[in-house]
Amino acid sequence: MSTATMRVVACVIEKDLDFEFVFVDMATDEHKKHPFLSLNPFGQVPAFADGDLKLFESRAITQYIAHVYASNGYQLILQDPKKMPIMSVWMEVEGQKFEPLASKLTWELGIKPMIGMSTDDAIVKESEEQLSKVLDIYETRLAESKYLGGDSFTLVDLHHMPNIYYLMGTKVKALFDLRPRVSAWCADILARPAWVKCLEKLQN
Amino acid sequence: MSTATMRVVACVIEKDLDFEFVFVDMATDEHKKHPFLSLNPFGQVPAFADGDLKLFESRAITQYIAHVYASNGYQLILQDPKKMPIMSVWMEVEGQKFEPLASKLTWELGIKPMIGMSTDDAIVKESEEQLSKVLDIYETRLAESKYLGGDSFTLVDLHHMPNIYYLMGTKVKALFDLRPRVSAWCADILARPAWVKCLEKLQN
Repeated sequence: MSTATMRVVACVIEKDLDFEFVFVDMATDEHKKHPFLSLNPFGQVPAFADGDLKLFESRAITQYIAHVYASNGYQLILQDPKKMPIMSVWMEVEGQKFEPLASKLTWELGIKPMIGMSTDDAIVKESEEQLSKVLDIYETRLAESKYLGGDSFTLVDLHHMPNIYYLMGTKVKALFDLRPRVSAWCADILARPAWVKCLEKLQN
Repeated sequence: MSTATMRVVACVIEKDLDFEFVFVDMATDEHKKHPFLSLNPFGQVPAFADGDLKLFESRAITQYIAHVYASNGYQLILQDPKKMPIMSVWMEVEGQKFEPLASKLTWELGIKPMIGMSTDDAIVKESEEQLSKVLDIYETRLAESKYLGGDSFTLVDLHHMPNIYYLMGTKVKALFDLRPRVSAWCADILARPAWVKCLEKLQN
């Protein structure tokens, strides 16, 4: 169910890399104990290892993969020195503006009902109002470039996918549908073969 | 008062770059109107221009400056390909784990009293508890490397400075003081000449 894990798995599949997926049993708090804590001191999934290098934080992992394996699979970063800083701006927008609201809504409307907890309607209302403003800005941005980070699909779009995937199954979908460019962008990125494979992989 | 602006100004001074500081009158909502909105559609300070390139999001701006002006002033990034991904992990830790809590506390205890608003004690209590756990992890991290991102001062530490500066003037200082390595690290980074110059610049 972890959006952060989905982010990393989607990235590895986009880059056509072989990887071993190691299940961490969160039901028995395996992520809060050693040895997992030596991989991620925050006790959260995912953690990632490539040879001796051990990383955590999903966005740091995807950036590592995208840069180090730049020539594998799909190119997830813009290498033009004029375009990369703009991509970097929108990476920060995702992390600082979209994620805090989207993850609250994913938790309240996507995950809580799945695990038998009840939704906090006040949090949903406030987060929906704030997310609407972010999506207005996305709608304008998508008039000037096909994807959020630039003219091609990049890590910026990929980082959004797990939360959007969950939110498409909730009433928050209406906020995306109201905005034609945002709505088309969501349909486009969620239809990527790597994303479909990522979901299959995680469901098995 | 903007921590995001302080982050960028500190970076430009560390890099010994000439720059023009353009005041945006937030009291008259200049940041919510055109032409400012064409620089930052979110209507927040800071916005940044370098020739034709226009950027927003403080962490995207500092990364641009640190990479493009790598040979100016102090080196704020680790270029060793084994160390850069680790620095990147701790950059994300700042943005995803430290900033949400620190900015709530800065707002409640640092800014609100300054502008005559009253502090929400429940938010302070919850944020302090969560921040304590993050600082425990920092204390462990600082036993293995002198700075959070690695053995030298980097953007990771710099990104923390504005919130820490405010929090040092509040009761949250006690949480930092309780942890000797965290406390020494705060004293070290806040004593940097570039930070002192940044504060002088913004106070004038």
